[in-house]
Amino acid sequence: MSRDLEHAVASDGTRIREQTKPAMRSYLAATRNFAAGNATPRQFLERSLELLESWEPRIGAFVCTNLPDARAAADRATERWRAGRPLSPIDGMPIGIKDVIETFDMPTQMGSPLFLGWRSEKDSASVRALRDAGAVIIGKTVTTEFAASEPRGTRNPWNTAHTPGGSSSGSAAAVAVGIVGAALGTQVIGSVIRPASFCGCVGFKPSVNAINREGSHDYQSQSCTGILAASLQDAWQVAREIVARVGGDAGTPGLQGPETIPPAEKPRRLAVLETVGWDAASVGAKQRLGEYVMRLKSAGIEIRTRHNDDKVAALETDLVNAMELSHRCNGWETRWFIRTMRERDAAALSRSILDRAQRYEDMTLADHRADLRERARVRAVHAELAATCDACIALAAPNHAPEGLGSTGNPEFAVPASLLGVPALSLPLFEVNDMPLGLQVIGYFDRDAGAFAAGAWLMSRLAQAR
Amino acid sequence: MSRDLEHAVASDGTRIREQTKPAMRSYLAATRNFAAGNATPRQFLERSLELLESWEPRIGAFVCTNLPDARAAADRATERWRAGRPLSPIDGMPIGIKDVIETFDMPTQMGSPLFLGWRSEKDSASVRALRDAGAVIIGKTVTTEFAASEPRGTRNPWNTAHTPGGSSSGSAAAVAVGIVGAALGTQVIGSVIRPASFCGCVGFKPSVNAINREGSHDYQSQSCTGILAASLQDAWQVAREIVARVGGDAGTPGLQGPETIPPAEKPRRLAVLETVGWDAASVGAKQRLGEYVMRLKSAGIEIRTRHNDDKVAALETDLVNAMELSHRCNGWETRWFIRTMRERDAAALSRSILDRAQRYEDMTLADHRADLRERARVRAVHAELAATCDACIALAAPNHAPEGLGSTGNPEFAVPASLLGVPALSLPLFEVNDMPLGLQVIGYFDRDAGAFAAGAWLMSRLAQAR
Repeated sequence: MSRDLEHAVASDGTRIREQTKPAMRSYLAATRNFAAGNATPRQFLERSLELLESWEPRIGAFVCTNLPDARAAADRATERWRAGRPLSPIDGMPIGIKDVIETFDMPTQMGSPLFLGWRSEKDSASVRALRDAGAVIIGKTVTTEFAASEPRGTRNPWNTAHTPGGSSSGSAAAVAVGIVGAALGTQVIGSVIRPASFCGCVGFKPSVNAINREGSHDYQSQSCTGILAASLQDAWQVAREIVARVGGDAGTPGLQGPETIPPAEKPRRLAVLETVGWDAASVGAKQRLGEYVMRLKSAGIEIRTRHNDDKVAALETDLVNAMELSHRCNGWETRWFIRTMRERDAAALSRSILDRAQRYEDMTLADHRADLRERARVRAVHAELAATCDACIALAAPNHAPEGLGSTGNPEFAVPASLLGVPALSLPLFEVNDMPLGLQVIGYFDRDAGAFAAGAWLMSRLAQAR
Repeated sequence: MSRDLEHAVASDGTRIREQTKPAMRSYLAATRNFAAGNATPRQFLERSLELLESWEPRIGAFVCTNLPDARAAADRATERWRAGRPLSPIDGMPIGIKDVIETFDMPTQMGSPLFLGWRSEKDSASVRALRDAGAVIIGKTVTTEFAASEPRGTRNPWNTAHTPGGSSSGSAAAVAVGIVGAALGTQVIGSVIRPASFCGCVGFKPSVNAINREGSHDYQSQSCTGILAASLQDAWQVAREIVARVGGDAGTPGLQGPETIPPAEKPRRLAVLETVGWDAASVGAKQRLGEYVMRLKSAGIEIRTRHNDDKVAALETDLVNAMELSHRCNGWETRWFIRTMRERDAAALSRSILDRAQRYEDMTLADHRADLRERARVRAVHAELAATCDACIALAAPNHAPEGLGSTGNPEFAVPASLLGVPALSLPLFEVNDMPLGLQVIGYFDRDAGAFAAGAWLMSRLAQAR
């Protein structure tokens, strides 16, 4: 559908006034036409801006935009594609940046009145890399307050009475409706995987440290810069182009893998994780996963679960505490920041962030070190699974996006990969009540390419699961 | 001398107009009088502000100050000491903050016109911890441009025609004259050890990641937040109080060691490193070190060098490339930042920073990964020395501070510990031509306490070396 609309625009210039259903637009797919001379990055961008105009009033995905510079950047990309010399495969790609990540040309407001109009005066490493790859930064996308839990009004494009998830709310919504081909998000608990699942786009939370976080206001050891994208190809390419230019976090090797998405590879053995989210999962969600697992078995893939594999069972047991342990780590690691904000103006902070900070007020360094050791222990338990299972799969959320904008929903399914520091993908494979729900693929540390290879196979061979 | 002057002020209120020789003031030593009720943090601060008034026009150590809030903080500390309930041993300590480290109440200008008046609107983790420990943040100290090599006018208090060293220029100068008991600095090549040596104060560059760097504009994997201080005791305590409250870099255990400075411990065996700086070292500097080593031998300490120990020789060989390898790592890791600055206004950048960025413009991710592997290899070579030597010692600089303000001097002696990611101390033990020169103690990764134990012994037992 998205493709048809684009063609209509490209051929006769007709403006489509409104799209009723969200439809993603893969920029990588579109570049085939640029190379052939049938379309241009500027045309792709203009369609993006039409979608922005029609969708934005309903979904509120953006905090601010810089459209004049975006158009100029798209024109430069157009010239480069015409000359056969794009800076990268994503040259000209419209991209949204979660508003906790710095951009020198736009404010970074972090979903907080305390940073209203605040300017970093510099790009984050990731944004600089994207610009150097030719990407077109069209605007800053809505984040919850300081990428924590307090929502800031973005709506789910599948049903605007429902949450888009968070904290990368605007990034997921903007990708879902095709305004951008990809957007940067961040995740420390469930902030990429959850909104990707709720909005029906691809979500990629990399191995911890694999994408340079410098200039992202995101201070936790589990934090990752992640990608929301229209396809697995787009997600991999955006991540790869960033890392090729600025690496991972300073001192780490950065995302490992080929220059374009790894070829699809059929897994031999998968572990299905229930996680503590299972109790909260809807009948429909469990049913989708159950049917899907049956089809995996039919395709000859061996399935391990807590019921037939001791190592999986051990991991499930160790993950029971994943949420509390993650919150404790994060609580210690952000306490200093919240303290300064409280001193500046406590009334400008949400109740939820004040309460959360209060909970970890008495933690000591010794407590925190014990938490880090416990996390390392659980990570080692997970790493052992690599000997027998190619990846883990799980629901990405307990159900489709819940109704209401007061909460960004339950992150219990997303937190294990955050705690483990390992790559996770949300693949838009399921629907429940006509709303999207993601299948999560959880890979192994620094083996993000393996998660993509499995994910690509699952997307291409079993995508009819919807 | 400093003590005498203070007494004069305290007893009759006379204002000392000018001090001719720099003299440091240990806050920890002064707190003994607070506990006894003979002096107060506010009095200590007022003496600081007199020294600021008399020295600052000659040395230019500060970019800006916040004296009203400093006085109010000192008054609160005074109350707490009176009540017998100081927040920490450094409650009330006047501290300077290098102007690449964020403070919510003052601009962070990074020695660059591109950040003139720029405000982070938040404290760095380290500054927040200091405030929570009761420390009195009196101002931001001069840094070279972006903590790199372009000087910003600070003068050496021992001779104002000479450089104070850099990049933590203002921090070292302010500590040396007693305006503050300690100051935060940063080091990625030689930016703490070098100015400490040149200004004659204690410098502490911790193990990499050991002090939380969040909110310090300092993006390299070798970067450390370090401490310039009036004594080893003050240096340890400041580091310890920061880490007790905000830990090391997120996800790391942070500085390991006791709550107060580890007891002095006589080393059994020390390695003397010449490093590639040796060729540039002055006759006087070599003589001081030579005499000192003789006295260590007389005290029964076994000395290993490249001439009598294969492992030391191997390390010396591997360190020949330390400067180039460090610059390559740093060059890759900061390239994205310089690119954005260049796009904002290339004319606002120094020639030296533009040239340096240019040199690493063509580096690839593969190049950088190879550099990280090489660095890890050299680190392993150094780590092996731990089996035989309690620590390494070396000059902290090739000579006293050189004349002229156009360069911050030669960092070749400081770079090995930066490359190795290990703790280093500069101890103000030597003088050449009536100007200070530091003895460097280089410890092992995450064993900063061991370096302090050795350093404390060297300071207390062999301090007559001057």
